[in-house]
Amino acid sequence: MTDAPIVIDCLQYANWSEGIFRQMSEGGVSAVHVTICYHENFRETVANFEAWNRWFERYPELIFHGEWADDVRKARDEGRTAIFFGFQNCAPIEDDIGLVEIVHKLGARFMQLSYNNQSLLATGCYEAEDPGITRMGRQVIREMNRVGLVVDMSHSAERSTLEAIEISERPIAITHANPASWHPALRNKSDDILKALGESGGMIGFSLYPHHLKDSSNCTLQSFCEMAARAAEVMGVERIGLGSDLCQNQPDSVVEWMRNGRWSKETDYGEGSKSNAGFPTQPEWFRDNRDFGNIAKGLRDVGFSEEEAAGIMGENWLRFFESNFVPAKM
Amino acid sequence: MTDAPIVIDCLQYANWSEGIFRQMSEGGVSAVHVTICYHENFRETVANFEAWNRWFERYPELIFHGEWADDVRKARDEGRTAIFFGFQNCAPIEDDIGLVEIVHKLGARFMQLSYNNQSLLATGCYEAEDPGITRMGRQVIREMNRVGLVVDMSHSAERSTLEAIEISERPIAITHANPASWHPALRNKSDDILKALGESGGMIGFSLYPHHLKDSSNCTLQSFCEMAARAAEVMGVERIGLGSDLCQNQPDSVVEWMRNGRWSKETDYGEGSKSNAGFPTQPEWFRDNRDFGNIAKGLRDVGFSEEEAAGIMGENWLRFFESNFVPAKM
Repeated sequence: MTDAPIVIDCLQYANWSEGIFRQMSEGGVSAVHVTICYHENFRETVANFEAWNRWFERYPELIFHGEWADDVRKARDEGRTAIFFGFQNCAPIEDDIGLVEIVHKLGARFMQLSYNNQSLLATGCYEAEDPGITRMGRQVIREMNRVGLVVDMSHSAERSTLEAIEISERPIAITHANPASWHPALRNKSDDILKALGESGGMIGFSLYPHHLKDSSNCTLQSFCEMAARAAEVMGVERIGLGSDLCQNQPDSVVEWMRNGRWSKETDYGEGSKSNAGFPTQPEWFRDNRDFGNIAKGLRDVGFSEEEAAGIMGENWLRFFESNFVPAKM
Repeated sequence: MTDAPIVIDCLQYANWSEGIFRQMSEGGVSAVHVTICYHENFRETVANFEAWNRWFERYPELIFHGEWADDVRKARDEGRTAIFFGFQNCAPIEDDIGLVEIVHKLGARFMQLSYNNQSLLATGCYEAEDPGITRMGRQVIREMNRVGLVVDMSHSAERSTLEAIEISERPIAITHANPASWHPALRNKSDDILKALGESGGMIGFSLYPHHLKDSSNCTLQSFCEMAARAAEVMGVERIGLGSDLCQNQPDSVVEWMRNGRWSKETDYGEGSKSNAGFPTQPEWFRDNRDFGNIAKGLRDVGFSEEEAAGIMGENWLRFFESNFVPAKM
């Protein structure tokens, strides 16, 4: 047992390597929610689960498969990192509601209902029209509630997100986004969403992806932490955490897969542009997993108490994991 | 807690229904190893897992998904039946060794390396030649040992079976077959196999499928129990149990799928014949899950002690489950 703080990053998608796992360990990161698919179908997603099993077999001293809240504490106590799986899209369940329970059994704990585009379940944030949660979407939300797979609306559109909060009988998450009032990106969230999310017991993880930051790569730590303070006023300080969206060492081909999958014959630049198509540079105060201490200090510097800062750094997500990853009581 | 006996049937493949689950409960059956695939590929097998999840959701008062030995005791104590999953063939792992860990995670606990025919891993009992365990087979056995998926050689050929016993670092099982010395069917096993199996800590489950019985549907309970007594002399009384191969209420189309899958354009009659192509009639002393008491009595009548009979009825399999379903200690 140690008294090291709990640090949870609720979204990363790196080009995984021993080096990155060592950085997690050096940074004292107890748990990371990692993306294991964007547009992959079920069978392709299973291959991604398999690839992670190989990492776990290869580096047991650094990482292990996280399934339950207790695994976060275990990781903290052992100086390792618990890796929790999530999907950025509903592609892996295809058109088959039975796959919800299957992917939860395999360890998936978050699933976005849509990624930028319309899906079978909900609308993405780049669509012109948002008709809200679909017929299948309503049933899948109920099934996700039943088995303990958390609804994530990070890349979904306004109405679909508000409806998901309303329909879901368990709290939902926006694992990686920021308030649109601070930086009006299409991916960032309105105060209406933040308020409804907070009132329903949901959580947001603040993103450190430059396209989600005010002044992009030049965003200051103080500005980021003041944004957190304002969000705490809207949602409640126990409803906020981190979801860095760190996409470390990825080649540009990966951002192309994220944005274009197999759905487009043209090139979609997503949050980037033709002249700025690749991954943007991280702000200097958050380059990788070793920099979480900067954020913890920054939060205290803008006036959060020790306890509040510890909540944002990990304790809030831990409480959320505790009550939302287990099957519903019948 | 009750002091009801542990009854484990280590192979059934019925046309599942509430009625059959009720018979299991009435018969005091604590656990059943059910076949969830013959020739299905991975995706098709996942659909079979899904179908079982629906049964579990529908009849929680009768059945639940068994994963560990403790689930057998839990089922006995609660008057329910724990359903353990197994594959009669290696089709679900396709050509992908990473799927071994995936299917174990989903709950598979037994996998046959071959079903009647040559597979990617081993030879089936109806092939003319048996070249033994393949290159992939050796690696898959090691991976099955690592994750806790039991090698089952019920439908495999002689040399492949002896090699699997030799190569596997954990005990293997023949979940449903009888000694060939009692009834010389191609599916029944030589004394060489029984001896090697017993010495390595493996188990056999005695089949009640008429094609595996001396005098077929007219086999007497006494003859069956005397066969068990002779096998106990060859293997050790703690190495034998039941694997009834009960295929209740199945239409003949199912036996056709079992025998022909998609591999044949002709009709293979397996253990049957053109004039006797369907499922044979069960002996009158074992018609369904309510008749296990007859066997327990029959075993005592041929001279097994109370304790030995309890071992054969379930305690022996329970000990086997205890040590072989969990991942190997590294």
